[in-house]
Amino acid sequence: MEKRAKGRTLMSYAPDIKVVDCTLRDGGLVNDFFFTDEFVRALYRANIKAGVDYMEFGYKASKEMFDVNKFGKWKFCDDKDIRAVVGDNKTDMKIGVMADVGRCDFRKDILNKKDSPVDLVRVATYINTIPSAIEMIEDCTKKGYETTVNIMAISKANETDLDAALDLLGQSSVGTIYLVDSYGSLYPEQARRLADKYLEVAAKYNKKVGIHAHNNQQLAFANTIEAVGDGVDWLDATYSEMGRGAGNCAMELLLGFLKNPKYNIYPVLQFIEEHMTKLREDGITWGYDLQYLMTGLLNQHPRTAIQFTGDNRKDYSEFYKEILAQE
Amino acid sequence: MEKRAKGRTLMSYAPDIKVVDCTLRDGGLVNDFFFTDEFVRALYRANIKAGVDYMEFGYKASKEMFDVNKFGKWKFCDDKDIRAVVGDNKTDMKIGVMADVGRCDFRKDILNKKDSPVDLVRVATYINTIPSAIEMIEDCTKKGYETTVNIMAISKANETDLDAALDLLGQSSVGTIYLVDSYGSLYPEQARRLADKYLEVAAKYNKKVGIHAHNNQQLAFANTIEAVGDGVDWLDATYSEMGRGAGNCAMELLLGFLKNPKYNIYPVLQFIEEHMTKLREDGITWGYDLQYLMTGLLNQHPRTAIQFTGDNRKDYSEFYKEILAQE
Repeated sequence: MEKRAKGRTLMSYAPDIKVVDCTLRDGGLVNDFFFTDEFVRALYRANIKAGVDYMEFGYKASKEMFDVNKFGKWKFCDDKDIRAVVGDNKTDMKIGVMADVGRCDFRKDILNKKDSPVDLVRVATYINTIPSAIEMIEDCTKKGYETTVNIMAISKANETDLDAALDLLGQSSVGTIYLVDSYGSLYPEQARRLADKYLEVAAKYNKKVGIHAHNNQQLAFANTIEAVGDGVDWLDATYSEMGRGAGNCAMELLLGFLKNPKYNIYPVLQFIEEHMTKLREDGITWGYDLQYLMTGLLNQHPRTAIQFTGDNRKDYSEFYKEILAQE
Repeated sequence: MEKRAKGRTLMSYAPDIKVVDCTLRDGGLVNDFFFTDEFVRALYRANIKAGVDYMEFGYKASKEMFDVNKFGKWKFCDDKDIRAVVGDNKTDMKIGVMADVGRCDFRKDILNKKDSPVDLVRVATYINTIPSAIEMIEDCTKKGYETTVNIMAISKANETDLDAALDLLGQSSVGTIYLVDSYGSLYPEQARRLADKYLEVAAKYNKKVGIHAHNNQQLAFANTIEAVGDGVDWLDATYSEMGRGAGNCAMELLLGFLKNPKYNIYPVLQFIEEHMTKLREDGITWGYDLQYLMTGLLNQHPRTAIQFTGDNRKDYSEFYKEILAQE
């Protein structure tokens, strides 16, 4: 058995691993966060049974910037809405929310931890807004939260900028720095190389590293388990890989792979059977398809592919010519 | 850029690579080989334009054992049927057929190469029928064909038997030995370890190594490109990953990845748009789904999952309990 980072092998398990369910948050980008209360309650119960470590409920989006009538409540994640599902959350699973730099009134909308059911604030930033991200991180740390940071769209960033960003984040109070493949453009070999870079900074500053993958080239799961082998600990996944565009790493694939006996695939299969299948039948569309392969291959934002999907187009070769012309 | 076997990097390309289109053969297992003539002619033209190196037309199945009225002609691959598509095949692409040990009247049905449009005979064997496979290989070599061998179901074989089988094949006249993930159960780390084993034997006996993957855990493409990095040269793929059960490595993903300028993804996209989409609309079903994830995870033959699919069942969690009971 080949030895990997931290002595990890396929037969062993790593007690440091944290599985984060992002179904409501990344999946919410598909259906504008209009999940039924029944769905959310059942997902909460399934996650607990499955041994999931963190459940991300959605975004803390600014109500000044976004119309609360145009989105489901999980775009805003009011504490009272989370409490209606989790009560005092007397479980081993922690509750997370995502806060986008520049789209969140964090000083007002994120209360002190002692008054909130939320445990973890996940700050999402582009590489050019790292100082603002750090301001949010420090605010949340002071309020008593665990924090993670997602640096998005790194496949378009230059490596010098990325090194500088990682070093700044290393010096902040953030707990975990996420490697994010926003465009689903990374091959496992590249994911491995980037993971090494993140892990080096993490070791220097005593941080953890996470991975958030997209499935444009059917590599979300492969990149995630490649990262596990390298020593990445925080793993994002969604039920039936529900997420923007091509979706994410499937929870069912990930829990099947992980050997930690605390994880259990069966409640995930049950939830998919009872709830995810229905979403698809209702016409909610996500997941791997040719248009996402193409934007991933060309390292482009998936917005054109999402539009292509929304327009019910099937003229894949025409679409390929269109997005090539944007290069 | 990390250096891989043979100095391969993501930016370079390997002139030794051969891409093999298995759409008619592995895909034929989904629709009993009932492809229209128009489909097959268009696929032949698309493969040539895409730079595919070998096109596998189907099986050389025994007409004593299988009823010719119950299958399309590509289960039998008569030379005259191939010639009706390729003429004298005055192209750079070579023609392959698969011959299963014990299900093929190879002495009678495989003519001398000089009288046939076929270039390559791919012998498929289980590990316990290696001597019969070698008999077929030597017969085909004498008749003037290139040969490859697929050792199937190795995830169930013990390593000592596999080592012995590889050594016997090394001593034969076969050109390429295929690493086959019949059950879609291998993780990239395991594929890498097995590829190293095959490559060691190949180096000793001056053979090439190929990979034929299945997509039960969405790893067919990931395992294939992992193998490329290790020095595996022959790569099987199918359009829209059409193949038994969860299907194979998608041609469109593979050609997007390979940097050899001879390969061209555009004709593949065109063919999918014009022909593969229609197959799905006609109700032909293949590709990744939970039931295949489960048999892959449990390292079981996909027959139960294929049955589940054929029965239009959606009770995934019940199915999981059923196949766990077979362990």
